[in-house]
Amino acid sequence: MKLKSLDLKNIKISDEFWSRHVDLVRNVIIPYQWEIMNDRVADAESSHCLENFKIAAGKNSGDFYGAVFQDTDIAKWLEAVGFSLAGNPDEKLEATADEVIDLIADAQCEDGYINTYFTIKEPDKRWSNLCEGHELYTAGHLMEAAAAYYEGTGKRKFLDCMCKFADLICETFGEEEGKIHGYPGHQEVEIGLIKLFRITKERRYLDMAKYFIDIRGVGENYFLKEMKKDGHKRIFPEFADYDTKYSQSHIPVRDQKTAEGHAVRAVYMYCAMADLAYEYQDDSLMEACETLWNNMVSKRMYITGGIGSSGILERFTTDYDLPNEYNYSESCASIGLALFGLRMNQITRDGKYMEEVERALYNTILAGIALDGRSFFYVNPLEVWPDACMPRTSKEHVKPVRQKWFGVACCPPNIARTLASLGQYIYSTQGDTVWVNLFVTSEVQQELESGCIQMKQETRFPNEGKTTIHIENQENVKVSLAVRIPEYAKDPVFYSGSEKIIPDKTEKGYAFFTVDRKEMELTMKFSMEPRLLHANPLVKADTGKVAVMKGPCVYCLEETDNGNNLPGLFLDSGIALKEHFEPDLLGGVTVIRAQGKRLVSDEWKEGELYKECAPKMEDAALTFVPYAYWGNRITGEMLVWVREIL
Amino acid sequence: MKLKSLDLKNIKISDEFWSRHVDLVRNVIIPYQWEIMNDRVADAESSHCLENFKIAAGKNSGDFYGAVFQDTDIAKWLEAVGFSLAGNPDEKLEATADEVIDLIADAQCEDGYINTYFTIKEPDKRWSNLCEGHELYTAGHLMEAAAAYYEGTGKRKFLDCMCKFADLICETFGEEEGKIHGYPGHQEVEIGLIKLFRITKERRYLDMAKYFIDIRGVGENYFLKEMKKDGHKRIFPEFADYDTKYSQSHIPVRDQKTAEGHAVRAVYMYCAMADLAYEYQDDSLMEACETLWNNMVSKRMYITGGIGSSGILERFTTDYDLPNEYNYSESCASIGLALFGLRMNQITRDGKYMEEVERALYNTILAGIALDGRSFFYVNPLEVWPDACMPRTSKEHVKPVRQKWFGVACCPPNIARTLASLGQYIYSTQGDTVWVNLFVTSEVQQELESGCIQMKQETRFPNEGKTTIHIENQENVKVSLAVRIPEYAKDPVFYSGSEKIIPDKTEKGYAFFTVDRKEMELTMKFSMEPRLLHANPLVKADTGKVAVMKGPCVYCLEETDNGNNLPGLFLDSGIALKEHFEPDLLGGVTVIRAQGKRLVSDEWKEGELYKECAPKMEDAALTFVPYAYWGNRITGEMLVWVREIL
Repeated sequence: MKLKSLDLKNIKISDEFWSRHVDLVRNVIIPYQWEIMNDRVADAESSHCLENFKIAAGKNSGDFYGAVFQDTDIAKWLEAVGFSLAGNPDEKLEATADEVIDLIADAQCEDGYINTYFTIKEPDKRWSNLCEGHELYTAGHLMEAAAAYYEGTGKRKFLDCMCKFADLICETFGEEEGKIHGYPGHQEVEIGLIKLFRITKERRYLDMAKYFIDIRGVGENYFLKEMKKDGHKRIFPEFADYDTKYSQSHIPVRDQKTAEGHAVRAVYMYCAMADLAYEYQDDSLMEACETLWNNMVSKRMYITGGIGSSGILERFTTDYDLPNEYNYSESCASIGLALFGLRMNQITRDGKYMEEVERALYNTILAGIALDGRSFFYVNPLEVWPDACMPRTSKEHVKPVRQKWFGVACCPPNIARTLASLGQYIYSTQGDTVWVNLFVTSEVQQELESGCIQMKQETRFPNEGKTTIHIENQENVKVSLAVRIPEYAKDPVFYSGSEKIIPDKTEKGYAFFTVDRKEMELTMKFSMEPRLLHANPLVKADTGKVAVMKGPCVYCLEETDNGNNLPGLFLDSGIALKEHFEPDLLGGVTVIRAQGKRLVSDEWKEGELYKECAPKMEDAALTFVPYAYWGNRITGEMLVWVREIL
Repeated sequence: MKLKSLDLKNIKISDEFWSRHVDLVRNVIIPYQWEIMNDRVADAESSHCLENFKIAAGKNSGDFYGAVFQDTDIAKWLEAVGFSLAGNPDEKLEATADEVIDLIADAQCEDGYINTYFTIKEPDKRWSNLCEGHELYTAGHLMEAAAAYYEGTGKRKFLDCMCKFADLICETFGEEEGKIHGYPGHQEVEIGLIKLFRITKERRYLDMAKYFIDIRGVGENYFLKEMKKDGHKRIFPEFADYDTKYSQSHIPVRDQKTAEGHAVRAVYMYCAMADLAYEYQDDSLMEACETLWNNMVSKRMYITGGIGSSGILERFTTDYDLPNEYNYSESCASIGLALFGLRMNQITRDGKYMEEVERALYNTILAGIALDGRSFFYVNPLEVWPDACMPRTSKEHVKPVRQKWFGVACCPPNIARTLASLGQYIYSTQGDTVWVNLFVTSEVQQELESGCIQMKQETRFPNEGKTTIHIENQENVKVSLAVRIPEYAKDPVFYSGSEKIIPDKTEKGYAFFTVDRKEMELTMKFSMEPRLLHANPLVKADTGKVAVMKGPCVYCLEETDNGNNLPGLFLDSGIALKEHFEPDLLGGVTVIRAQGKRLVSDEWKEGELYKECAPKMEDAALTFVPYAYWGNRITGEMLVWVREIL
């Protein structure tokens, strides 16, 4: 049996590190996106998202406006609202969401179909361009939203709408004659169908997801066939010369050995593959998941948990190709990586997956949102030189400043739903065992197999390597507590109260303890001093360089702390790193200092570009701050991989 | 008075280093391109270039095929033929060329217009899309070809055709009412018009060129106006969101302080600006040329003479932004840089310009063509990892292997015409002075102001830092000989016969000697040991790295000599470089060896991407070969800027 995340209702986060980010969702992002979707934000592009639904519902007249997947903005908003209401009931917000759901229901066609683009603009073109039309992708996000809203509020209306749509999809697609033997151009509906199945137990939804995964990349490519049909209309110009790897439809999924193509499409597919591998006990699919995971995290992932090395097509490239200043590494892709890792962790109970989930959460995902919650990175470089991030150049996709919410924006609402559902990553349960995956101050009330427990975790992680878990076990259930020991934790020791204790066993990165008392306080302490990381020597972009980490947090140099020309700084790894907590900096962070050298220019005259002369250096102190918080002060250079004095 | 290049008729090159490249033009490239243009090369894309002219001439029926500037293929071919015939008369080739010229004349419209695209496809759209239509660009290349053919053969027919076309252009464009107040979307016609003026002395051609340069970027942008007109048709999709910097039409040319936009457009414009600055003694234009030159060579040029840092739009970016593995640095742009530098040298008599001309010739331009003359680089990176040069990624424009001639190909014929006209860079004259700019074994017979001299230069440059110039001065003219002393020449000494002599004066990088005998043998010797170069510390891509040069030649590491993962090699600059000539390698090259370290992977297990561990190094010998010759053996990695042990 796989592990399950806690119901978000059962967990309250009150964490020094995370709460301020998580609270932004409720206090800033959900209200702001609501304004955006209503076209009430003066300096943002028009969204037209709600208006599209009103037109599709016949309430307003007018034309569709926006991208073909414009409806997903409402979907992701409702999903975040669902997650948020679970932990923080809010009558007014719920009433607003209910109205939106009524509107979606009104925009639903008789037969269950929902998609405002096709309903308004091309009602007779439904399902005719699976490659680019994003109908199934949009459906998937709506299904995920319906599931979250049902779980957050107990209300079924949205869920029922989406089941009706799912029924239509089941009638439309499949191997039977007369059905469409196609699959989505952007994977996502598989995840949505599986979520519907898990709530409703309707097996056909699961089978439908399996069909989409099983036929993907089998035989003649479906999208290339589509493009050859009479009347085919290109939606996205960049889809000319379509490479089927882009959508992971180049070969059957079980034959895929390397992470290829558009990174978000890839990881969303891997999530569905993991779910299906579990549900069908499908070993070949599980093996494919493991192979793809391993390829991705051991050869194609940035130290920050970013994936997708190419600025063009936001795609994976090749093993060890991890350029730092012109990569894409979309925030959404790291979210997908975390979702995939969580699934793999829950199936295998292996902490190694949580290691990478934690990496993505503490670095790329968190970097995606400004400290004030009002601006966002889509692209997550590891080295930024603002002057060179010019439009219409090789670095045009790299932004040195977080961007406002766009009319069409995938990353901001995706980050919002991730933060709103952070609880699902912190703990898992199975039977009478509770797994503690992440170190986040929080309170839990959870029904286990044999009874209810209350649990409180207290920690100053990631500033300190210590967490204390207090369990109240009034019913005296025989609870097993599995505490993750991260790979970076040095010399972990455990205490029950003040007494050192030894775990019952240590397995796959977790220390197991038996709680056979009404109350127990378990403390894990480990050393989490800042450390210097090197990349595998095959990562060409990083040879001769080091990165600084503390726990799961990658650190970076910023111009505001270190002056300009960061690539002219060299770290001396022979001198110990020093850390201290600065309560007033960036809302309170641990700062790390290193010693090294700075290349000086004083021997270079204006106009000299290349010459014979030994590089001249002077001593320099290097100040590192968490990568997650870069770009929150003055706009300037940023650098993760720092040159090393060899 | 500005200096003049020698008539190519008067110079015979028989150089150990250059002859094999120069001879390729005559023996391989001209015949091969002839086959290409006749669509007789089985594995090349269709050119249709001659067929277009036959259709435009009414000799064949059919439709136009190719790019709007397809005619320039014939133009560049004829220009190379003209240059080639000057030094190497060839009756058969001349007869073929004459036939082509007859065809061009037949395809010329009554009023003088020549452009097969518009004549065949859109006769009523002439001059309606100056931004994208390339009519003036094509005209310019045809004019340059006509000038070269006239100078190479003395035949006027082509020249007369082009004068007729130039007359039409003069009637069509200009400030007078009723004329088009526009300018070319791709600069080139200015150079062509100036060449026609210099041969025919028709002042209106010069004035026309001046008009195009003077109004460029003045007032409301002409191209943006064009795009707003009814019926405007986009030719190149990438011209959407047109940035006027792309074509250097963002501000008046005299106000331009930095090299901007598409690099080839930029340098072709600078060439015309230099010519006009001289012809009109226009100080403000000359100042702009100097400013733009200085910005380009001191802040935006690769050590190889490459320009244009961005893969997107082949454009300049910003000062010191010189990435090595995803730059564009088109071969044609370096050709334009050499043409601009030659003009500046001839106007100012300053050797500093020749320094960069030589850099471009010995590195990027020569690297553009394979040793067998059958394949070409358009893009000239300084670091190549073949596995990562994948289609549809940020490095898709970078090719690890030279490409065959395409159906439409700007660089191959441009390299051909440059090699065919190498003679014009080697010497210049003015009055009774001869300037020796480049060290190339060659024989010259030249009429000076007061009489004729014969001259023979013998050298093993760039393998040895020595050149001997033998002058026969039968008429006992008082000749002044100005020999360039390159910046990299250490301890230059001069000998007359075996006797050490001192120059009359040394000025702007030239040593001047008086030849007042009937015969004189002057030898210049200088040390040209391999040297280590650093880039200005503001070049972020090169901090912590060194480049190896010998004389003007940049060297590189290749995988075939050094194993893979070249970025894992570190050079120890404390150990002297060693050189030796290898007669059997790459047709005979000086190889340079350095000592250093290699990052080893043996502590890294499969699946490890980042970890705490000191980098492990082993001793390594590094073997460098000239950058110009990279990619002529086994396909593999290449690297110019090597990490340095600090």
